[in-house]
Amino acid sequence: MSTISFEAPRGMRDFYPEDMIWRNRIFDAWRTAAEHFGFQNYDACVVESLELLQRKSGEEVSEQIYAFEDKSGRKLALRPEMTPTLARMVAAKQSRLPFPIKWYATAQCFRYERMTRGRKREHYQLNMDIVGSQEVLCEAEILGAAVYAMRTMGMPDAAWRIHVSSRALLGELLAASGIPEQQHAAVFIALDKRGKISDEEIAALLKAEGLNDEAIKKTFTLLAVNSIDEAAALAGAESPAIQNLKELFATAQQMGYADLLMFDIAVIRGLSYYTGIVFEAFDVQRKFRAIFGGGRYDSLLALVGGQSMPAVGMGFGDVVVGEVLREVLGETAPVARQGYAVGYMSVAERASAIALAARLRATGERVDLALLPQKPKHFFGKAGNSLAKFAIFLGPDDLASGVAQVKNLETREVTQVQL
Amino acid sequence: MSTISFEAPRGMRDFYPEDMIWRNRIFDAWRTAAEHFGFQNYDACVVESLELLQRKSGEEVSEQIYAFEDKSGRKLALRPEMTPTLARMVAAKQSRLPFPIKWYATAQCFRYERMTRGRKREHYQLNMDIVGSQEVLCEAEILGAAVYAMRTMGMPDAAWRIHVSSRALLGELLAASGIPEQQHAAVFIALDKRGKISDEEIAALLKAEGLNDEAIKKTFTLLAVNSIDEAAALAGAESPAIQNLKELFATAQQMGYADLLMFDIAVIRGLSYYTGIVFEAFDVQRKFRAIFGGGRYDSLLALVGGQSMPAVGMGFGDVVVGEVLREVLGETAPVARQGYAVGYMSVAERASAIALAARLRATGERVDLALLPQKPKHFFGKAGNSLAKFAIFLGPDDLASGVAQVKNLETREVTQVQL
Repeated sequence: MSTISFEAPRGMRDFYPEDMIWRNRIFDAWRTAAEHFGFQNYDACVVESLELLQRKSGEEVSEQIYAFEDKSGRKLALRPEMTPTLARMVAAKQSRLPFPIKWYATAQCFRYERMTRGRKREHYQLNMDIVGSQEVLCEAEILGAAVYAMRTMGMPDAAWRIHVSSRALLGELLAASGIPEQQHAAVFIALDKRGKISDEEIAALLKAEGLNDEAIKKTFTLLAVNSIDEAAALAGAESPAIQNLKELFATAQQMGYADLLMFDIAVIRGLSYYTGIVFEAFDVQRKFRAIFGGGRYDSLLALVGGQSMPAVGMGFGDVVVGEVLREVLGETAPVARQGYAVGYMSVAERASAIALAARLRATGERVDLALLPQKPKHFFGKAGNSLAKFAIFLGPDDLASGVAQVKNLETREVTQVQL
Repeated sequence: MSTISFEAPRGMRDFYPEDMIWRNRIFDAWRTAAEHFGFQNYDACVVESLELLQRKSGEEVSEQIYAFEDKSGRKLALRPEMTPTLARMVAAKQSRLPFPIKWYATAQCFRYERMTRGRKREHYQLNMDIVGSQEVLCEAEILGAAVYAMRTMGMPDAAWRIHVSSRALLGELLAASGIPEQQHAAVFIALDKRGKISDEEIAALLKAEGLNDEAIKKTFTLLAVNSIDEAAALAGAESPAIQNLKELFATAQQMGYADLLMFDIAVIRGLSYYTGIVFEAFDVQRKFRAIFGGGRYDSLLALVGGQSMPAVGMGFGDVVVGEVLREVLGETAPVARQGYAVGYMSVAERASAIALAARLRATGERVDLALLPQKPKHFFGKAGNSLAKFAIFLGPDDLASGVAQVKNLETREVTQVQL
C-alpha cells in the first residue's frame, strides 16, 4: 500500500478547501473587477490546436508547450497562454462582432518548465483584452480594472506599482540613436533579459545581433532615462509615443489610480507582438516576479490569419499575486463568515435539526447541517474552524423548551431562536 | 488565407459572451447551491496521472481517456471524471481531514468519444461529495443542493424528476431470485444498457454471463417493480435498503423536494463502484439524457488505495442541463440587466464621460465606458443589446447644461443626472 502515490502529477496543483479560500479571493476579485469595467466573459477549451500556437508563438514558447496527439492523430496542445485563442475566436467572427469589444477570461494555462524554485507547470490567468480601438483609453480601462481587482483583493496601494513604458517610444529612441528598425526586435528580446543575465551578457547578445560598441553604449544610455520628460527631450514632444504615455497618465489621474503608475523604460515584455504601451506590475520591494503585465499588440490578429485590428491586452496570473497577498495580508487574512452551522446531540434531535436547517435555508441563509450526532464540544470546535457565522446545537433540553441557543462565532454573543 | 482554420479543435467548445451568459447561469447556480448547503470548494488540475485513473476505472472508460506523455515520459491524462481525483486528495490527507467532509468542485472533464449527435469531448461537471458518513442524510443533502441549483437556474419543478433506486435493493432482490452475488455486477452492467439496446440483446448479455432462462425472466420481472411498497413486499420490510429509501423520501419531504422524487428501479448507473442508493434526474418528457446522477459508493476510497470509508457523490454536467434549460425557458431567457453604459458624441465630451464613469464606479456601479466617440443611434443600439440597465450619452448640449439624460433600458424611462 505504501507505494501508491496520492500526489498530483509533477507541477500540477491540488486545491484543498483552505487553498480555495485564497484562490476564490483572487478569482472573485478578477470577475468583479472585469465586470465592473464592462468586460464581457468568454472562454475556450484549454486544449488548442498546436498549429494555432505555432502560428503565433516564437520558438522559446514552443519548446515549453505540452503537446500531444488525439486518437485520430490530431496535433493538440494544452495552451500556454490565452491570446492566440482570443485572436482565433475574434478572427472567426471578425465580420460580425460589435467592435470595439472588451472581453475577459479566467484561463488555465500550461507551460512545461524545469521545476526550479517551486515553479508550477500550470496556472490561471485573468485575461482582459480590448480589440478594435487605438485609443489610449483602452489601456487606461484595462489598468483601471486591474487596479480595481487588486484593491478588491485587499492589496493596499502602498504595496505595489504599475511600471509603464512603450515599445513604440523605445523604438523611436533606438532609431534616433541610429539603430535600424530591423534590429529593434532583437534588441527588445535582449533587453528583456535584464535582471536575469548580466549587462555584459546582454551587450554580447546585442553585439551578436550586429550592433557596434557605440550603438550598444547608446542602448544602455537609453535604459537610464527615468521620466517621460527625459524621454520627451530625446524623442521630441511631438512623438506619438510620448503623447500616448502622457494621455495614459492623465486618464489614470481622472480614474483615481495615477499614484500607482510609474514610468519605467526597462519594461519590455518578452513577447514579440507588442507594438505600443507596455506595462508590468510589481510589489514595491521587487521581491516577487511581475504580478500582471500586458500592452498594445496591434499586429496579432493579422499574425494568426485574421484582418489587422488594434488591440490591447493583459494577463494576470494567480500564482504571483497569491504570494504577494500572503506576504502583505498574512497567511490568515480574514474571510467574511456567513451562514449557520447546525448540529445535534443524538438521532432524537435530528428531525428538528433538519427542519431548522430547511427553514433557515428557505430564508436565504447558508447552512452546514451536521451529518452525524455529535457532542457539543466537538460540534462547536468544528464550527469555529468553519466559515459559518452562527452555530446552533440542538440537545434534548432545547427540544423540550422549543428554544435553541444561537452562538455568534465572531462575537461569542448568544441569542435565541424558536424551534 | 482561406485555408486557415479558426475553429476550436474537434469536440472542444468555444464560449462567446452570449454563450457565457448561459454557462454562468449554470455555474453560478451550482456554486450558490453547493455553498447554500455548506459544501466546501476544492479543485485539482485537469491533468491527472494515468495510473490513478486506471487504478479506479473499468476498461470502457480507459479507451475514452485522452492520454499523453510529458517530456520526461510521465504518463498523464485529461481526467474523464473527478471522482478518482477526489479519492486521491482525500486519501492523501485521510488521517487529518475533519470527517465527514462535504466538498464540491466545478471540474472540466474530457472523454474521447466518436462525434455522434453533436456530443462534445469535454464538459464541465459540478461534483458534490460527502465522505465519512453512512447516514442517508448525506444523500438527502446532496439531492437538496441539486434541487436548489435547478431552482436557482429557473427550472420549474414540473419540468423534471429525480429517479431514485438502490443498488443494494436490487442486489437483495436478485439474491432473493436465486441469482448469486458474484453475478450481480455483470447484471448491473447489462441492465444499465436498457434503452440503448433491445431487451433481447440484454437477455443475450445476461445469458452470456451464465444466467439461465428462469433467472433472466426473474430479472426482467424485477424491473417491473414500480414502487417502494412493491419492492418491500419482495425484499421484506426489514430490508436495510428499503429502510434507507424510505428515510430518503421522508427527509426529502422535510426538506421540501419530495414531489420531485420518484422511485425507479431501472436506475442502475453504469459505474461499478456504486453500493447503495443511486439516482438520476431527467426532464419529464425524457427527451434528453440524464441531467445529473450519482449515488453511494462506499468502496471507492479503498479502490484507489486509501482506507475504506463511506461516501456519496453526484456529477451534474453543464451540457444536458443547458439543453433542457433552453428548451424549458427559451433561447432568450431573460438575464438581469445591471449597471450603466456611458457614451459620448466626440472627443470634446470624452473627459466628462471618463469622469462620470469613475464617479459611478466609485459608488459600486458596473460601467461599460465607450472606447470611441459615437453617434447616439449607434451608442443606444449597442447599449440595448448589452446587459446594461441604464444608458447615458454625453453630447455638447449636455456638457453646456451640466445635466445628462439617463435612459432606463428596461422601462425606457428617462431621468437626469448632474455632471
